[in-house]
Formats: sequence, structure tokens, C-alpha cells
Amino acid sequence: MTDRKPVILISNDDGITAPGIRALVEAVKDLGQVIVVAPDSPQSGMGHAITIGSPLRLHKVEVFDGVESWQCSGTPADCVKLAKDKILHTKADLCLSGINHGANNSINVIYSGTMSAAMEAAIEGIPSIGFSLCDFKFDADFTLAKTVVRDIVKRMLAEPMPEHTLLNVNIPVVAAADYKGMKICRQAKAKWEEDFDHRIDPRGKDYYWMVGSFLNMDTGTDTDVAALERGYASVVPIKIDFTDYATKTMLEGKWKDNGLGI
Amino acid sequence: MTDRKPVILISNDDGITAPGIRALVEAVKDLGQVIVVAPDSPQSGMGHAITIGSPLRLHKVEVFDGVESWQCSGTPADCVKLAKDKILHTKADLCLSGINHGANNSINVIYSGTMSAAMEAAIEGIPSIGFSLCDFKFDADFTLAKTVVRDIVKRMLAEPMPEHTLLNVNIPVVAAADYKGMKICRQAKAKWEEDFDHRIDPRGKDYYWMVGSFLNMDTGTDTDVAALERGYASVVPIKIDFTDYATKTMLEGKWKDNGLGI
Repeated sequence: MTDRKPVILISNDDGITAPGIRALVEAVKDLGQVIVVAPDSPQSGMGHAITIGSPLRLHKVEVFDGVESWQCSGTPADCVKLAKDKILHTKADLCLSGINHGANNSINVIYSGTMSAAMEAAIEGIPSIGFSLCDFKFDADFTLAKTVVRDIVKRMLAEPMPEHTLLNVNIPVVAAADYKGMKICRQAKAKWEEDFDHRIDPRGKDYYWMVGSFLNMDTGTDTDVAALERGYASVVPIKIDFTDYATKTMLEGKWKDNGLGI
Repeated sequence: MTDRKPVILISNDDGITAPGIRALVEAVKDLGQVIVVAPDSPQSGMGHAITIGSPLRLHKVEVFDGVESWQCSGTPADCVKLAKDKILHTKADLCLSGINHGANNSINVIYSGTMSAAMEAAIEGIPSIGFSLCDFKFDADFTLAKTVVRDIVKRMLAEPMPEHTLLNVNIPVVAAADYKGMKICRQAKAKWEEDFDHRIDPRGKDYYWMVGSFLNMDTGTDTDVAALERGYASVVPIKIDFTDYATKTMLEGKWKDNGLGI
């Protein structure tokens, strides 16, 4: 046993000045040595993008009282990579991302910059959690979210997940009295129905804004969408091995000819 | 039975003028009604990014002889979304992405723009395949790759995968005589070891280039990395449900208190 405090790396995708990351820092800063490395501008919808075609900037900044903080010109995944190589020089004990302004349940795990920071940490073998509040507003109320964060972080510090597994935690918008607790869930089968908004610019040229409506195609009661609707915080364990093993077995039987045989 | 040709949507992440997408179009254009919607500039490493903070441009262009083609200012995932909503007005029968200049095996599926176009199609329920040649060069030889593409596309048109499952196909750089055939694989456990190249700009400010070396941590012989090393084309079925079901079951037992209990 040592008295060394756990090193907690914090990032997000709404940018280092977003209220959500401030709420996350406040929720956990007495639980370890917190270091923030976050984007200098909003990176929502960046998925697991990394910056390979242009260079990155990294600056130490004063944003959170008594917490070492850096802002980076790149994506959330870039932040975690830079943190590991240029700032921490060691493996963090835990990586937290968020608290995102807006839900990242179901299929949104694929598009989410918040989740990509946590996923990048998981690739590195760092236990990690992405937190999102189901409220897109800049001035959203993070009071309940901070309590949920603190509860889950304490559990993770006491006993981490299996290596390379991360958690996707979404917090409902309910009054504290109506909050039902956590629910361990699976990712709901859902998608966005896009409907691009077509406009004409002042020079007469077409352009398009992506808009869309969320479509839950999953009637299961064990999904993150269902849990959130009932007032639970959803906790989905996520893995970074995307192999579909059932289809792998099926294809091994079916494509026995080994290729170029048809 | 109808005589309608299957609608094959093609995209990539190296941009509409890359030799790889030209090879893909040539390989399959007699197998269906091919429509190309691809980025107007390189989008490597974009992961599953989508463009929500700025508008998109979309232009019809003449690039491939006799093939309807559009270039888009956005990411590969944007291209597939725009194709569905603004160009096809129907569900494609198949979506192909690539042929990428460079490998997208193992963990690269997460960072890859090529795979994100295929993954976006899979979310929409469109059978889809991402193709990559393990050669980063602009003037790579796509001869073998085109033969592999044609073989796999014929199989998919004859009998698609289960809905929402896509294929990640990587083609080795070997002489045709040394090519061993296809191998159905799992995603190897691997990662990139980053080592940011620190430089000083002409105004005395720091900047960083992401560089890195690929680290395969997987000794299994059933992985995509192992298959490629032995001269096979690797075929990994990929699913879009990222839930780690084993950990879900474990947590359901362990976190029975339902939250805020500690």
C-alpha cells in the first residue's frame, strides 16, 4: 500500500470552458490528483477522430482552482494521447470524460467526442468512464450528475472494470427526489433520421445543415434509452473489440472455399 | 424477381480523386448501379466524426466515366448520410468504402474514416464493406485488391450479412502468386504507441505532430494482423453494438445496491 493519490485524467468534447467539465472536476477533485487536458473549442460529434494531417497546439492554462490544466487544439482522442505522452509521462489510474451537455446513449456512443476520450484511454488500458447529462443546454443543472459521478468514480477506484472495458454513463434530467438510481444496461438499437436543411448562401450556392430526429428502434426494457426514460442513470459497459463473433463463426462455415472461388 | 440492378453506394476517406476509390469503382461497376459520394479532400483518421457545427457543401462532379458522382465537404459519415437523404432517396443495396491507401486492421477500425462510411451504412441497415490495401503509397498497386473486392462483393450481393453487421476487409501487399486467399478473423488487440514530434514554429511557439508506431499485443493466430502477415486478405465482421455483455452481467451482480449506496 502506498499513500499515492490516484491520478485522474479529465477531458471532454464541449471544450475546457464548458460548465460540464467544471462540474466533473468539482465532483471528483478530492478523490485523486486531477489533471485536465481538454479541447480548446467544442468538438461535439467528432467521433474517434485524431489529428494526423496538421500539427497540434498544447497550452498550460489556469481554469480550475488548484488543478493542473491544459488546453489542446485537437480532438478529445488527441487530448488523451498528448496527455499520456507529453504531460503525465505515466499511466493514469482513471480517465473521466464529460460531463457532456447532451445524451450519449445508444448509437451516440459512435458519434460522441466525449466517449472517444474515454475509449482512447481504454485502448491504453486505463479504466475510463464517459459521463453525459441528457440536457443540451449550456446552463444545465449538474447537481444530480455530480452525485452520480462521485458514486461511480468511487466504485471504479475501489475495483476497476476488466481491462479495455469502459463505462458509458448517462444521467437523466429529473428532480433529485425522482431519481431512481443506476441501471446496468445494454446499448439500445437506435439511429438518427437525418433531414438535411437545404439553404442558399448569399452568392447563390447550395449548402446543407445536418439536422435529425432520434429514432429508437428497440423495444427492450434493458436498454440505456429505456432506463433513462424511467428516471435511472444508464450505465453501459463498452468494449473496444468490435468483432461480431456470431457472424465470424457463420462466415467461417459458409466461405470455406477461401476466396476467389466464385 | 426484378431486373433492377442493385444500387451500390461508394465512398472513401482519401477523397474522391484518390486512386483507391477509382480502383473500387472499376472493380464493381458492372455489378450494379454505382453512385459515388465521397469527400472532396482527405479525411484519414476522422473516425466516426460528423459535421454538426458547420454547413456542408455537395457538388455533382464528373470523375468516373459513366458513374454518377458527388463530392462533399464533410466526413465519410456525412457523405453516407447526405447520399441517403439528398441523392439516393432510397436505401442502397450495398455500400462500399475505400479502397483505403493503408491498413485498417485491428484497432484502426476505430480511427478509420474508411470504416466510418461503412459503419454509417450499417447503422442504416445497408449491407456494407470497408476495403483497405496495406500500402500507404499514393501509387500503390490495386490489381490484387480489385480481384478480392470483386469476389467479396459478389458474395455479399448473393447473400448479405445479418443486418447491422459490416465487413472490414484488408488486403495484403503480396504478389498475386503469393496471395493465400481470404481468412475470416477477429480484430487483433493492438494499439498505437504515440510519440509526438515536438517542434518550434517561426514565432517561437510549440507545436506537435502525432507520430506513432503500431504495437500488436495479440499473439493469436485467428486475428486480422496474423492473417495479413501470412499473405491472406483479412475479413473481420464488425458490429455496431459496442456493449460488453460479459461485463454487464458481472456489474448487475456486483452493483446490486442500485446506486448512491456508498
